[in-house]
Amino acid sequence: MTAKTYAVIVAGGSGSRMGNDIPKQFLTVNEKPLLLHTLDTFAAAIPDLRIILVVSPEHVEKVAGLLTGFTGHVQIAVGGSTRFESVRSGLEFVGDDSIVLIHDAVRCLVTRELIQSCLDSATLLGNAIPAIAPRETIRLIENNYSRLIDRDHVRLVQTPQTFRAAEIKHAYEVATNSNFTDDASVLEAAGFKVHLIKGEESNIKITWPADLQIAESILRERNNVK
Amino acid sequence: MTAKTYAVIVAGGSGSRMGNDIPKQFLTVNEKPLLLHTLDTFAAAIPDLRIILVVSPEHVEKVAGLLTGFTGHVQIAVGGSTRFESVRSGLEFVGDDSIVLIHDAVRCLVTRELIQSCLDSATLLGNAIPAIAPRETIRLIENNYSRLIDRDHVRLVQTPQTFRAAEIKHAYEVATNSNFTDDASVLEAAGFKVHLIKGEESNIKITWPADLQIAESILRERNNVK
Repeated sequence: MTAKTYAVIVAGGSGSRMGNDIPKQFLTVNEKPLLLHTLDTFAAAIPDLRIILVVSPEHVEKVAGLLTGFTGHVQIAVGGSTRFESVRSGLEFVGDDSIVLIHDAVRCLVTRELIQSCLDSATLLGNAIPAIAPRETIRLIENNYSRLIDRDHVRLVQTPQTFRAAEIKHAYEVATNSNFTDDASVLEAAGFKVHLIKGEESNIKITWPADLQIAESILRERNNVK
Repeated sequence: MTAKTYAVIVAGGSGSRMGNDIPKQFLTVNEKPLLLHTLDTFAAAIPDLRIILVVSPEHVEKVAGLLTGFTGHVQIAVGGSTRFESVRSGLEFVGDDSIVLIHDAVRCLVTRELIQSCLDSATLLGNAIPAIAPRETIRLIENNYSRLIDRDHVRLVQTPQTFRAAEIKHAYEVATNSNFTDDASVLEAAGFKVHLIKGEESNIKITWPADLQIAESILRERNNVK
């Protein structure tokens, strides 16, 4: 019997950087909320995927409404005040003997190919962290000054970050602070090694208003090509 | 008398990453080549700006044709095989007692506001390097492995990088290698301190096909708003 695969999709943001009262995950792109673009891509990528969707307490009802037409396996979990707490809440619903993909709902441009590639690599290596090389020169700020670092040695980390469930759950249990900005860092703090794989240039985190236009344009193009 | 201001616009790329025979700077966005979007924005930002446009030898004729309708001060310079050589060629046409903005032609989404802000800061401080904080978690690759670095300390460097002409010209003359990925690094190698200022999220370097859609969408939106 094949072990189940889970996705913990974190949709707990507040949307303040958009200058908008609607949190980003609920903004509509091509007549569909960002969140549903993300869910649809995950459901299409992995058959029988169990999705744990982590949302803020005040959004549970709204999200339940949005999910009416969604045909995949999805369960709502109530998140906390930080990303760390939200992921930890989501992981409670994940079986130990499985692979889990942890993804930010606002990365709605992720492709099925990247999701499958993360699952394949994590199955083989224990975990898989998608990352890309920066196209910019990189400087590191130190003591009110900045110095150059070689961009060939730098990686920008994306999601879905994919793990053996027992390992990442253990890492979240033993973590001694909650300031981590991603799950790979939590795993690493617990003594595991992380494996980077090739991410996607277009797999951006929708953060600023201009990103919504980018998302619209890319999703429209993909739908035309299909 | 106010000293002249120069812009060295580097348009020497080959376009290979686009899977396209047309170099990126000549691709058309909203019925205008990228290059002309960039030139128009610079000309609109700074009155009486002297633009030195650095192009590959094989593109001189094509570029001269494209410039027919352009009303700003522009002079074509022939570039070399690397960005370093191209900038050095362009700087030969820049007067010592001036401020010079060095910009990649493919950053066609730069705004007049950023250009003016670079000029103002460089006039005051000697140089100005626009940079933004990454929105991703950052890892540094070391000896086949990677470690986390604090993204609050990381900056992604953009252009236009803006300098006292005498200082950056001197730095290019004394440079002992030509592997630099930006001009601030050249200045720094010559012993000067560089000053970072706030760049713009949308000021991306058009590199991949999806970036063209981004550029189209952002430029269309800006034109509608005007």
